This record gives sequence, structure tokens and C-alpha cells, in this order.
Amino acid sequence: MDYYYAANGVSEIGANSFEWAYLLGIAGAVLALVFAFFQSRKVLKFSEGNDTVKKIAASIRAGASAYIKRQFKTVSIFYIAMFVLLVVLAIPGWVTPFIPAAFLVGGVFSQLSALIGMKIATAANSRTATAASGSLNSGLRVAFSSGTVLSFTVVGLALLDVAVWFLLLRFVFQLEAQDIAANMVMFGVGVAVFALFARVGGGIFTKAADVGADLVGKVEAGIPEDDPRNPAVIADNVGDNVGDVAGMGADLYESYIKSIQAALALGVAAFYGVGLHWEAMFLPVALAISGVIASLIGTFFIRTKENANQKDLLNTLRRGTYIAAVLAAVAAAPITFFILGSWGPYIAIVVGLAAGCAIAYFTEYYTSAHYKPTRKLAASSETGSATIIIGGIALGMKSTFAIVMIVAAAIIGSFIAAGGFGEFTMGLYGIGLAAVGMLSTLGITLAGDAYGPVADNAGGIAEMAHLGEEVRERTDALDSIGNTTAATGKGFAIGSAALSSLALLVSFISIAASRVAEYHPDRVAEYPGQFAGLNLSITNPAVLVGLFIGAVLVFVFSAMTMNSVQKAAQSIVIEVRRQFREIKGLMEGTAEADYKTCVDLCTKGALREMIMPVVLAVIAPIITGMLFGIEGMVGLIAGATVVGFAVAIFMANAGGAWDNAKKYIESGELGGKGSDNHKAAVIGDTVGDPFKDTSGPALNTLFKMLTTVSIVFVSVIAAYALWYQF
Amino acid sequence: MDYYYAANGVSEIGANSFEWAYLLGIAGAVLALVFAFFQSRKVLKFSEGNDTVKKIAASIRAGASAYIKRQFKTVSIFYIAMFVLLVVLAIPGWVTPFIPAAFLVGGVFSQLSALIGMKIATAANSRTATAASGSLNSGLRVAFSSGTVLSFTVVGLALLDVAVWFLLLRFVFQLEAQDIAANMVMFGVGVAVFALFARVGGGIFTKAADVGADLVGKVEAGIPEDDPRNPAVIADNVGDNVGDVAGMGADLYESYIKSIQAALALGVAAFYGVGLHWEAMFLPVALAISGVIASLIGTFFIRTKENANQKDLLNTLRRGTYIAAVLAAVAAAPITFFILGSWGPYIAIVVGLAAGCAIAYFTEYYTSAHYKPTRKLAASSETGSATIIIGGIALGMKSTFAIVMIVAAAIIGSFIAAGGFGEFTMGLYGIGLAAVGMLSTLGITLAGDAYGPVADNAGGIAEMAHLGEEVRERTDALDSIGNTTAATGKGFAIGSAALSSLALLVSFISIAASRVAEYHPDRVAEYPGQFAGLNLSITNPAVLVGLFIGAVLVFVFSAMTMNSVQKAAQSIVIEVRRQFREIKGLMEGTAEADYKTCVDLCTKGALREMIMPVVLAVIAPIITGMLFGIEGMVGLIAGATVVGFAVAIFMANAGGAWDNAKKYIESGELGGKGSDNHKAAVIGDTVGDPFKDTSGPALNTLFKMLTTVSIVFVSVIAAYALWYQF
Repeated sequence: MDYYYAANGVSEIGANSFEWAYLLGIAGAVLALVFAFFQSRKVLKFSEGNDTVKKIAASIRAGASAYIKRQFKTVSIFYIAMFVLLVVLAIPGWVTPFIPAAFLVGGVFSQLSALIGMKIATAANSRTATAASGSLNSGLRVAFSSGTVLSFTVVGLALLDVAVWFLLLRFVFQLEAQDIAANMVMFGVGVAVFALFARVGGGIFTKAADVGADLVGKVEAGIPEDDPRNPAVIADNVGDNVGDVAGMGADLYESYIKSIQAALALGVAAFYGVGLHWEAMFLPVALAISGVIASLIGTFFIRTKENANQKDLLNTLRRGTYIAAVLAAVAAAPITFFILGSWGPYIAIVVGLAAGCAIAYFTEYYTSAHYKPTRKLAASSETGSATIIIGGIALGMKSTFAIVMIVAAAIIGSFIAAGGFGEFTMGLYGIGLAAVGMLSTLGITLAGDAYGPVADNAGGIAEMAHLGEEVRERTDALDSIGNTTAATGKGFAIGSAALSSLALLVSFISIAASRVAEYHPDRVAEYPGQFAGLNLSITNPAVLVGLFIGAVLVFVFSAMTMNSVQKAAQSIVIEVRRQFREIKGLMEGTAEADYKTCVDLCTKGALREMIMPVVLAVIAPIITGMLFGIEGMVGLIAGATVVGFAVAIFMANAGGAWDNAKKYIESGELGGKGSDNHKAAVIGDTVGDPFKDTSGPALNTLFKMLTTVSIVFVSVIAAYALWYQF
Repeated sequence: MDYYYAANGVSEIGANSFEWAYLLGIAGAVLALVFAFFQSRKVLKFSEGNDTVKKIAASIRAGASAYIKRQFKTVSIFYIAMFVLLVVLAIPGWVTPFIPAAFLVGGVFSQLSALIGMKIATAANSRTATAASGSLNSGLRVAFSSGTVLSFTVVGLALLDVAVWFLLLRFVFQLEAQDIAANMVMFGVGVAVFALFARVGGGIFTKAADVGADLVGKVEAGIPEDDPRNPAVIADNVGDNVGDVAGMGADLYESYIKSIQAALALGVAAFYGVGLHWEAMFLPVALAISGVIASLIGTFFIRTKENANQKDLLNTLRRGTYIAAVLAAVAAAPITFFILGSWGPYIAIVVGLAAGCAIAYFTEYYTSAHYKPTRKLAASSETGSATIIIGGIALGMKSTFAIVMIVAAAIIGSFIAAGGFGEFTMGLYGIGLAAVGMLSTLGITLAGDAYGPVADNAGGIAEMAHLGEEVRERTDALDSIGNTTAATGKGFAIGSAALSSLALLVSFISIAASRVAEYHPDRVAEYPGQFAGLNLSITNPAVLVGLFIGAVLVFVFSAMTMNSVQKAAQSIVIEVRRQFREIKGLMEGTAEADYKTCVDLCTKGALREMIMPVVLAVIAPIITGMLFGIEGMVGLIAGATVVGFAVAIFMANAGGAWDNAKKYIESGELGGKGSDNHKAAVIGDTVGDPFKDTSGPALNTLFKMLTTVSIVFVSVIAAYALWYQF
């Protein structure tokens, strides 16, 4: 089994104690999981509240569980098909036998973390509402603690997955470093499939429910948001959990584990020649472990005084995040120097961490009503809905500049810091480390993110259970901060996805080069250099056409998911209208709505509509590869990453800004609730809903998926692509 | 003076009679110009109509002339600055002394053709309205003939420019083939600057007037479109001429001439080794000449029976276009075989022609209410403006697939046909020929396009001059077809811009490689192969960052132009409101509106707002180049072309579909005029206005400009880029 470098005639140089250091990875994973366990105990200790609250929470929980179960069934069929395909690929040796096994483990771990996150979120929503009856601080602590359960479960399971596989491959199967690396970068396929399904399905569910509930409830029947008379209100709350908790968790599980796998593989390529490859492979895991500890410490700084206002709340969340980032940056210095003995890689890591913070800042700048862009957007409602739509699109497009440039600067900065111009492979390792650095404090950044939907749910429950003005005000404050953390979380998810996708792309290319060299040795002479056998020049029509296909794929995928939301929302509209018409006493509050049917419709709609986008993401790279070879695939991935990154930022920020512009008007500015300006802003918000919660976030998982599929099919493509037959 | 290939040690191989064949280019140019002259005589022979018509037409003419004069002043400052810069670059030999001279000639020719096109359009609008009082066929003939004046002027002047420069460089300055090629690809800078200004300025003007007139006139005051009481109505009609005639003309002048220049340069690179370079250089011009003749014949087939309906009208326009395309395809066979003696290049040409027709078809499919997508979009107005907005965005995004894939197929098809896999440079020449093929029948395709705004104006004049129900119906029929031809024209303009920009990019790279080799000979050993000295691999962080910058540039540029329309429209809204308030008797029809002030405001707004986007387009590649070298520039151009192409298609088709969905409802479907559905559709159309007429079309000129600026600065960048200093 001599994948990867064997083709270049390099053989094993030597081993050392850093191979065993991976045991520390298991220790880090256990630490994260134990912390998640205690946090969940802490959350569950809080009182669930009165019977009405309990009943509402039970409905949400039941809806979410029902969705996840049925999603699991649909996904299972796909999983089994993929598993069989991988086994078939393994028989002639196109992939190693480890790949189908890792596929299963990755998929299960990813699903498990999403499931645990959702379970705790649907337990914490009622507890947050009830705790907020006592004080704002208690509400914050319940909601945030539930966020840490998701985030530390994600981090813990991902670390466990990587560490155990490393130890197995090294000490049980006795693979060499290069073979471990080549296997590791293929391990992400199960994770990718689940993340894509969770993001697309969850995104469609949540927005179908939201848009459907708003169109009939708010607009037609004139009842307020979260009113228990609206039959889609439970579905709307379920949507927050399956979309923003489970979907987000699966998405970041993938980015996190892939950043480690890619960095590890790039480390072997960079340091094999100097015999430091075990060290270079361990560094990403060491950073992840120190990130767990830094995040853990950071969470202790998240508490606020009892009479805190919204600004205090936001500040305490920010404080925790920044403390964790600074701790991680400080700790990385001795760790990196001890392991690799040089400062270059350290700077690359700090560049990644700093880029993460900068992305969060700029996302907030563009989407929060505390800053000029969103306030100007709100003011553009004065001339009607057309101008606020154009204004939001322009705002979203403009916002791509800062965030894409931050990532571009991180790429260049980490490349130069780690390798300079002379050491190309070390520079690439630097890019990989930047991605790990950006994601190392995921324990706290994802918690802030997952806190949002819990607070949102708590607000809904407070409204439905009539918990009183004061409680609703507190949950509103919690929710409003949740909107900001959700927006910055999205920026962060997109940025880290782009960075880890590019790191993985480089690993893919080096594997692909060795495969092409094996099957078409004549091409090596024709295209010598870094990745011999491949002509990755942008002037190669295969690369160029790949770029075009990648770009178009992003637009088609976005269009499909937007249309899916419309279709699924339409079925909710019809059902809610039916219930209003047929259930006597519903509007008067004497009869109860049939919430379950709406949940069912969203579930069916989401599951039906998620198939096609996922299929597209899987077959597009295979078809492109079969026609235009590895070069076409590389063009496709690069095109989809560059375009998908920009479009995802555009959509997330336009949607976030519309949402907050509406909330800004609702706070009494520019005419307040019910004014013409407000009506225009509501239209903006409705357009923004599928932008920010369906299509935009799903794009992250799209371009990561394209890379993963390409890696798995690399041997088949290298051998049989039409492009290589002439 | 040994540019281009001198670095590779190749010297002149021999000359032949094909050098003299360029005289035929002058003959072709004269033929086109004479035809344009006679067509303009024909148009002017028609009666202008009654005094009211004459007065209205005079106002439009005066407004358009005033705008063009002031645009000329603004552009002149920029021109002089650019000219001085080019002279400065010429002194140390960074560019040849021909470049500043060609810059002036190109700019003047491009302005001249736009000016002539606008003059005849503003003379033909009243004549079309008056002729339509007689019969539909007469109206069609006047409007279409005026379109041919623009199109044949564009084609004639462009051919003249290329042919005269070739003969000058060859026989007066006695340059070798490679030096002629290297000069020629730099000649486009004057054309590019004017096209960018004309598209951006004209696009802002036309939509500021349109949106401003609609927001106050239609929405607030409740008066119909083109009502003479609306003070912005003349500005709106002026906008059609400066945006859709002058802007479109300048844009396609650039694509046309650049496709010839790029193909000619690629021809030298491909055929120098076999001594057929003069032949290969002449072929694009020969195709252009036969295209002129084919287009000329095609125009004679555009006539319809007196009782023609809308479908007949569309069919006659299509018939003319397809006949020209078939004639051009047939003629290209003997021409290509006679000149080059092989069939490969011929197939590449036909691929380009076929791709042009396919783009036109799919654009129509996505934007015409005769097909399903636009009808479904119209139906989505049932659930309000938010859903029609989301639906339009999804439709536009989806439509990118077909059109981008056609261009991708054309790239691959022409590459393989002309060169196969063994002959890389011949394949690239094939891509250049495909671009020339697509544009060869511009004489008729652009005429169909320029016909639209004339018919639109005629409708406005008929309304304002109260020419009666019957006339208005006929002009409406003409206008409606104009919308379709304008939409297909936009698709065609974008597709051809992408193709000719890519052909030019390849020429740029080969010049750049020789410059880098000259200044940094050490890099040649490091990066051998096709373009020695350059590392154009997509894994090179400079290329990757360039891709990111290019992608973001498209979004920022789109956002800027959209915001510009909003700002300029806002000033119109305030002015129109003021006139309604202050001019007594205006609403009653006893006093006349002050049209001139609105025209002035649009002019000022457009000129003020067009500066920044143009500056951005000029400095972005220079800054990127100075930081990341030629590789960064190549990434930038590729990124901007791929993304800009997709976004331009998305915007043009979303806008076109919204417009036609609105018209479809106005025709009495889905509740008709005044219904809630109609109101939702009007909002969609207003969002689409800057999409389809400002930002989208301006993107074509953006990515062509990036390539052109890069080529001019190639020597400076090669010598001084920071990226090469380490």
C-alpha cells in the first residue's frame, strides 16, 4: 500500500515520539466531551417552567425529533448507496479499504454531534424562557451553556475521530506517514455528505416554516409573530433547531475536521524531506487541543450583571471569544516552537486566528443596526420596497470585498510566513495551519452561534405561553444578540469553509498528480514541475472550463435551494389557510391549531427538495472529471470556492442586514411598526430569509463537498478521463 | 524593436501576398460605411411628422446631444490623462510609440460610431412613430434601418481601424509579424476606456430617469408611463438613446475589434513556426469582411406584410439574423480553406457562430413571456412582491447555466477543432476564431439590438403627441419585439465579451511571459514550459488571490453602479415632486413641465457617478499586478471574467424576465393592470431596471477593461512587481 509519494520514489525516513503524541488528541477530545457533558447537566438542572411552557416545548421537541428521524432515513439510503460505491471502488484498489470505514464513522460522528446539539437546544429553549423570568443573566447562562454543549461535542468528536484513526493507521496497520496523509484527506466524505444534507434540508425546513407562517399569519390574518393561533408557529420554532443548530453544527464539524486533516497532509508534504513529518502532522492536533482549553477558559468569562442591557450582553459574549482567541494565540507560540523549532508556522497560525476575528467584526459591521450600512438600508425603505431590495443587494455585494480580502490576505500572509517564496510546500502547509488556527477556538465561537436559535425559541415560547411583558423583553434582548452572533457565525463559517476547502484542494492536487503520473507517465515529461503530469495553468482550456462550471454550479445550486423554499412554503400557506378556514374557534383562541400537520409538511418538503441539490453536488465533479480530467476538477473546485465564497457572503450579509433593518424600524425608528417603511422592510426581510438561512449557508457545504467527492474519485478520473485519452 | 518572440530567439521567416490582403479590409470597411450612409439617407427621407412630434423629438435630441457633449468633456479629461500616461510609458520603451497614437484613434472611432448611432436613433424615433401611423411595416423599416446605421458604422470603423494600422505598421514602419501582433493587442485601450464610460454613464442616466419618472409619476401621481405631464419623461426617452444605443454601440465596437486583434495575435503565435503567419493574421479580417456582406444580405430579408402581428415581426427579425449566420458559415468554408488549407479552424469559426445563435435562443427562452420561466415568474406575483423578487433572482441564476455552458462548450470545441491536444497554440487560435465567428455578423445582430430603443422612443412620442390608439398599438408591438431583441442582444454582448476577453487574455499572457523572461531570467528555469517564467498554476497563491480579487471586483462594481442609479434617481424624484408642487397647471395640462432640468440632473448624476467605477477598473489590475505580478493579474482577469460573465447573465436575464412578467400581466393575464399582482410585478421590474440596464451590461466592459489595462502595463509590472522581488 504505497499511495501518495511512492510514485516519486521517496521512502520512509524515520519515526519518533510525535507519533505517540496523538494520544494527547484523545485526551483533548475526552476533555471537550466531559465539559460538554457537565454543561448539559447544568442546563438540565434548570426548571423547565409551568405546564404551558412544558407542553409547547414538548411539541417543538417532538417536531424536531420527527424531522431528524425522517431525515436520517432519507440520508441513510444515500449513505448506503455511497458506502456500496466506496466498497466497489475499494475492490480494485481505487481507494483504500479504510475509506468506506472512515466514511461510516465520520457520518455517524457528525450526525451524533448534530443530534446532541439539537437535543440540548430543544431542552434549553423552555429553560431559557423560564430562567429569563428570574433574571437576564440566568437566561443568558442557560442559552449559552446549551450552545457550548453543541460546540464542545463537535470539537470533541472530531478530535477523537482524527486521533483514533491516526493511531489505528500508524500502530495497527503500520502505515507510513504519506499513506496516513493520503487516507486522512479522503476521510471527510461521510462528514461532507451529512453536512450538505443537514444544511440544505434544515435550511429549507426552517425557511419554509418561517415564510409560510409569515405570509398567512402576519400578512393575511394580521396576528403577531409566534402567536399560538398560527398553525405554523411550532414548525417555525422546530426550524430554528433543525436549521440553525443541527445544520450549523454539521457544517462546522466538517470545516473543523477537514482543516486538521488537510493541514496534517500538507505537513507531510512539506516536512518529509527534512524528517520532521511526524512533528508537522501533530502540530494541527496540538493546536486543536490548546484551542479546546482556551475556549473552555473563555466560557467562564461569559456572565453579566443582573441589570445588564443589550450592549452589556453583546460585550460579554465578545469578551469570552476574544479572551479565548488571545489565549490560543499565546499558547500556540511555545507549542509551535517546541514541535517544529521555527517561527514561520506560528505566524501562519496567528494570521488565521486574526482573520477569524476580522471576519466576525466586518460581518457585524455590515449587518448590525448599530452601524451605518444597515441604518442607511433601513432609510432606503422611505422610497418603497424596490429601493430597499436594491439597497440590500448592493450592501451584500459590497460587503464581500472586506471579507474576501481578509481571507485572501490570510492565504498570502500564511503562505509567505510559513514558507516564503523559496519553500512552496511549506507555504502551503502555512495555509493549512491558518485554517486550523481560525477554527481552533471553535469551542467558543460555535457556542455563541448555537446560542442564537435557543434564545429565539425561548422568545417564541415566552410569547406562546404568555409569560408576561417583562420576560418577553428579556428574551427579546437575548434574541436580538443572537441575531448578531448568528450573522457573525455565518461569516466565520463561510470564511473557514473557504480556507479549509482550499487547503484540502492542495492536498487533492498532490494526490492527483501522483495518480496521473502513474496512469499516464507520458504526461510527466510534458508537464514537469511542482505537480508533474498536471497542467494546472489557467490557460489550459480544461481548467478554464472547470472554472466556468464551478461558477455556474454556485448559481444553479442557489437558485434550486431558493425555489425549494418557495415550493415548500407554498404548501404551508395552503395548509395554514385551510386550518384558519376549517378549524372553528381557532382565531378566537377556543380551539387549538393542528401544529403537527405543518411540521409534517415542512419535513416532507425539506426532505423532497434536498435530494436534487445534493445529487448535483455529487455528480457535477464526477462528470466534469470524466470529461476534463483532474484539471477540470481543479478548475471546478477553484471556481466554485471563489464564487461560492463571494455569493455566500453576499447572501448572508444582505439577508442579515434586511432582517436587522426591519428590527431597527420595529424598534420605533423611521415610522415604526405598521408604517409603510415597515411594510417595505418586511418584504426585504422575506427576500433575505432564503438568502441568509438556506442558499447562503448551504454554499459552504457545497464547495467542501465538491473537493471531497473529487478526492475520492481521483484514481478513477486519473485513469479514465476522456481528456487523457487523446 | 523586437517585442514578443524575440526573447525566444525566433526571427522573421518570410512574407507573402497575404500582407497585402489587408487592403481588402479597407474595402470591406468602405462597403459597410457606404451601406450605413445609404441607410441613414433612407431613414431621413421619411417624414418626421406633425409639429408636436417634431417638438418632442427635438427635445429628446437636444437632451441626448447635451449629455453626449458633457460626457465627452468628462471623458476627455480622463483621455488626456491616459494619453499622457501612455506617452510617459513610451519614453523608456515600456510601450511602443504606436500605443498612444492608437489609443487616440481607437477612442475617436469608438466615440464616432456611438455618436452617429445616437444621431440617427434620435432622428428615427419620430419618423418611426409617424411611419407607424401609415403601417406597421413602414414603422419596422424605419426603426430597423436606423439600427443598421449604428451596426454598420461600428463594423466599418472597426475594420478600417484594424486594416489601416496593419498596413501602416507593416509597410510604413516595416514591423515583423510578431511586433505587429504585440502592438495590435495593446491598441484596444482607447476603445475600452470609452466603452466603459459609455456603458456606465449611459446605464446610470437611463435608469435614473426611468426609475425616477416611475416612482413619482406612476406610483405617486398616478399618471401613465410616457405622460407628457411627467417632467422626467423626456429624460427617460433620452436615456434610451444614450444608454441602449450609444452604450451598446461602444460596448460591441470594443468586443468586435478586440476579437479581431486577439485572433490575429494568436494566429501569429500558432502559425509562425510553419510560415503561415500572414495567412493566419488575415483570416480574422477575411471573416469580418464576409460577415459584412452576409449581414448586408440578411437585412434585405427583414420586411413584413402590412397586417403582420407581433409574432410575424419577431419572425422576420429572426429570419434576417439566421440567414446572415448561415451565409457567413457557408462563406467561411472556402475562405478558411483557401487561406489556411485546413478544416480545423473552419470548425472553430462555425462553433463560434452557432454559440452566438444558441445564446440568443436561450436568452429569449428565459426572458420572453412566450416561454414557461417568465410565465411562472409572473404567476409567483400571486403571493406578493417578495416571492416575485426571489423567483426572479432564482430564474436569473438558473439561466446562467445554459449560457455559460454554451460559451464553455465553444471554448473547448474551438480549441479541440483547431488544434486538438497536440497543438496547444493552434487550439488557442481556434478560441480566437470562435470569438470572431460569433461577432462576424454583428452588422445584423447589433442592428436588431439598436432597433429596440428607437421603437421604445417611438412609442413614447406616439403617447406624448396623442397620435391615436391605433398608432400606439403598432408602436407597442414594435416596442415589445424590441424588448426581446434587446434581451437577446445583451446575452450576445455578454457572451462575445467573455470570449474575446479570454482570447485577449491568452495574448496578454504570451506577451507577459516574454517580458518576465527578459527582466527575471532566473524564473524561466524555475517555471519552464508553455509560458516560461510564469507560474500560472491555480495552486500559486498569487493566481488564487487574483481570482478572489477578480470575483470581488465584480460584486463591488455591481454594487457601486446600483447605488449610483439609486442616488441619481433620488435627485430626479425630488425635482419631479418640486415641479408638480410649484408649476401651476402642470397636472391639468395647461402648463408645460420643465423637461430640461430633469435631463440636466440625469446628466450630472451620471457623469458624477461614472467616475469611481471606471477608476476602480483601471487601478485594480495595476495594484494587483504591482503586488502579485503577472500571475496575480491573470488570476484577476480570469476571476473577473468568469464571475462577471455569470453575474452579468444573471442580472440581464432576471431583469428581462421581470420586465416581461410585468408586461405579461399588463396584457390582461393574472388580474391585469392595477391588480395586486401587477403591483408586485412593478416592484420586480423596478428592481430589475438597474440589473439589466446598468450593472449587468457594464460588467462586459469591466472585464474587457481589466485585460486591456493589464496588457498596457505588462512591462512595468514584469519589471517592478513586488512578487518578483523575493
